[in-house]
Amino acid sequence: MNNLKIKFLDWSAGIPVAMLNEKTATELGIHTKDRVKITTLSKPEKTFSTIVDTVKDLISPEEILVSSELKSLLDLKEKQFVKVVLAENSESLNYIKKKLEGKELSEEEIKLIVSDVVSNALSESEVAMFVSAMYIRGMNEKETTFLIRSILKTGNTISFSNKYVVDKHSIGGIPGNRATPIVVSICAAEGLIFPKTSSRAITSSAGTADVIETIARVDFSIEELKKIIAKTNACLVWGGGLGMVPADDKIIQTEKLLKLDPEAQLLASIISKKLAAGSKYVLIDIPYGKYAKVDKAKGLHLKERFEKMGKIFNIKIKAVLTKGDEPMGFGVGPALELNDVIHVLDQTKVGPRDLEEKSLFLAGEIFEMVGMNKKGQGINRAREVLYSGRAYSKFVEIIEAQGGKVREIEPATFKKIITAPSSGKIKEINNKLINSLARIAGCPADKVAGLYIYISLGDSVEKGSKLLTIYSKSKVRLLNAIDFYNKNSVVRIE
Amino acid sequence: MNNLKIKFLDWSAGIPVAMLNEKTATELGIHTKDRVKITTLSKPEKTFSTIVDTVKDLISPEEILVSSELKSLLDLKEKQFVKVVLAENSESLNYIKKKLEGKELSEEEIKLIVSDVVSNALSESEVAMFVSAMYIRGMNEKETTFLIRSILKTGNTISFSNKYVVDKHSIGGIPGNRATPIVVSICAAEGLIFPKTSSRAITSSAGTADVIETIARVDFSIEELKKIIAKTNACLVWGGGLGMVPADDKIIQTEKLLKLDPEAQLLASIISKKLAAGSKYVLIDIPYGKYAKVDKAKGLHLKERFEKMGKIFNIKIKAVLTKGDEPMGFGVGPALELNDVIHVLDQTKVGPRDLEEKSLFLAGEIFEMVGMNKKGQGINRAREVLYSGRAYSKFVEIIEAQGGKVREIEPATFKKIITAPSSGKIKEINNKLINSLARIAGCPADKVAGLYIYISLGDSVEKGSKLLTIYSKSKVRLLNAIDFYNKNSVVRIE
Repeated sequence: MNNLKIKFLDWSAGIPVAMLNEKTATELGIHTKDRVKITTLSKPEKTFSTIVDTVKDLISPEEILVSSELKSLLDLKEKQFVKVVLAENSESLNYIKKKLEGKELSEEEIKLIVSDVVSNALSESEVAMFVSAMYIRGMNEKETTFLIRSILKTGNTISFSNKYVVDKHSIGGIPGNRATPIVVSICAAEGLIFPKTSSRAITSSAGTADVIETIARVDFSIEELKKIIAKTNACLVWGGGLGMVPADDKIIQTEKLLKLDPEAQLLASIISKKLAAGSKYVLIDIPYGKYAKVDKAKGLHLKERFEKMGKIFNIKIKAVLTKGDEPMGFGVGPALELNDVIHVLDQTKVGPRDLEEKSLFLAGEIFEMVGMNKKGQGINRAREVLYSGRAYSKFVEIIEAQGGKVREIEPATFKKIITAPSSGKIKEINNKLINSLARIAGCPADKVAGLYIYISLGDSVEKGSKLLTIYSKSKVRLLNAIDFYNKNSVVRIE
Repeated sequence: MNNLKIKFLDWSAGIPVAMLNEKTATELGIHTKDRVKITTLSKPEKTFSTIVDTVKDLISPEEILVSSELKSLLDLKEKQFVKVVLAENSESLNYIKKKLEGKELSEEEIKLIVSDVVSNALSESEVAMFVSAMYIRGMNEKETTFLIRSILKTGNTISFSNKYVVDKHSIGGIPGNRATPIVVSICAAEGLIFPKTSSRAITSSAGTADVIETIARVDFSIEELKKIIAKTNACLVWGGGLGMVPADDKIIQTEKLLKLDPEAQLLASIISKKLAAGSKYVLIDIPYGKYAKVDKAKGLHLKERFEKMGKIFNIKIKAVLTKGDEPMGFGVGPALELNDVIHVLDQTKVGPRDLEEKSLFLAGEIFEMVGMNKKGQGINRAREVLYSGRAYSKFVEIIEAQGGKVREIEPATFKKIITAPSSGKIKEINNKLINSLARIAGCPADKVAGLYIYISLGDSVEKGSKLLTIYSKSKVRLLNAIDFYNKNSVVRIE
């Protein structure tokens, strides 16, 4: 009786959710909005909890209708049978409450929360409460260590016998800061193993995965990933598709809501990914500034926490503070940032200098970390690799190994050029508002939406000269973006 | 183009939600899980925000499919046209974040949060974050006052010219504590106006509205409510249906999740309801004890805050602390508690003495508050009204005015008698576990589910004698409940 037949409907709810016939729900003692546990009958058994809606007519009492998200999560086939039972409330709710109340959590408690996040036994609102609790109460070193271990335990890992397995990560917050593909290409061209897994945008207008996805696949299995790295020394893929840190992937979804980014989760998210990917040397980029994620003091504090965590998990972590007062490069948004990356790598083109210099600095730091260069000399090696075109060749190689082809992408067709309302000097470009503007235009879901920024801090502009162009796939979103620009002080001229 | 045709499907999602055809979504710049603002074209215009799912085939590009919750909220008719636009992110998100960070909110900020809660511009997860923030950070007197005012402003109110408009409220936490219908009947029989609006169960197994709903309607319009009160002096209705405090109704839905009940929201919830219903004298019952919501110190603190709020809003509020060490009455769950109420009121029957005594005490306090009796004398008047049968006649009158008929209700058919595993004295009956047990059995959604408790603290029991009976409409839920009982120390015998 508890076995129901899977039905599809091209129904995309954004979350895994299922529908039952009213009669079936009554018989199983399930009320609307209750959580049920769905288990596949075939081996290996997969289990996932989800909330249910009920319907009268759309499906028969023997059927269960699943959203496309649930279908792909459990790899379900039409007419397959699954077992459906009412899910009990998990103990983890009490632990979330405990953290809300400011108490320290044990390893067992954190482990249960994390595994309930993965199996969806906790709802999105419940995860939101966990994120709120971490945001307000913080987590000490022990708890953060437990969190990282728990995240690792619920996912897949890979490892390499190579000596130099490196990675870099930016804590984010700076629109257009797309150094990763450039740094990866430079380092991999010099023989370093660089298994770069990125998230999609959390609170920003684009993540590295969003950018690479405009021209190549980013969603691979662990096996495919190993082949790509064996061939090219590196990869530029989406971490979420690898099932390495499924807990982190779901928590990040929730963080989007309030644009919260609790410190413990930030540390855990980054470090667990690097450990899962087998990295031994990790460079962390911490941009600081007025409209960056952190100020200098907070940045130094984070640097200390990161480097300490490295010692605990026995890998080398170095964090560098970089200036984050304004957007980087010209483009903001997946396609527009890709174009910047190509322009820096391809020596026949002219790319944004700030992005080039930052990428060279970061690559140089990595060469020094692994001991290939003495202090202060790494950047010269990076420059040589970039200017010789070897980095670009490596980038082409990686993209092709990921089934793509390097090419520039045209931005969206609806556009609006914003001009200077008066002559003067550019005093401020607000990272956060630039980011919101790009998101209103449709980023990161619309890959060709975004901004092209013509100006930098300190530039002199004439009345009527170009400040930026907004690109959007939808007229409605373009109008919303223009309206947002007019209502907010995105660029300040004095 | 933004006008879409309403389609129904008997689809109950537990929340207001809509589906769009993929094509329509793309044209409107809407991504799955985005929020849209739906506005009716007919006057008066109604607006509501909601998240959207997308589907390929189920509906045409000209249609919008709405869940039954959204249908009834906006009072929608099939084939009616509505305007659908992408909803912008509200400023209120920043204020929730501000509260999470421990900062004080202004009246304007609280007002926007509350009105966004009502118009659904905030998602359930976002409201969950607001509840978390209130729970951890608290709200000072000023903020609580703003919260109450904002809740009142977004709802309907009524008022009476009568001098004695009274109310009572328990902060809850004690299973089976169903004094309200008895107190209302006693007071109304003596001519007091008692516009009692109750919530459905928040974190408990039954609220007064759930109990009364087993034999009468509880969902009325303001106009109907006035007629019932004009006829009988009182009512026993569900507050949610009156649209008096829609913000509170929605926040309460979210509190259910973690069984959180932040103090500011507790105060605001109770006081706003009393003010909206036109009450001038309010008695607050604060049960305290080991497994009650509060201990004695917290109870005294709450008493002070309640009585102070009364002064601010210019009504008389008195709070009394009562013992809350064990469940009250015999029954737990809507139908089982109704039977207790009838047994106390109907003088031909024998009801639970603890519930009778508590009801008399509370009614007596109310008589003294309004000055009908001197201190210590109110309870005698209450006793006289109850024992003469006048309270029961009044109860019958109120239930009939609400379209019902007083009758006992049979509990659910699946049942399990739990017996004492050993002889001894009852040392503990854990309110919280009793409550969870009743909820696992199906309360409050299944009205005939629940518990019958045969024992009180201090009773001597023999091995094998009855402790309680669990009733459930579903075999699955009964088995879950038995399993829960076996795994937890619900009743302790020594």
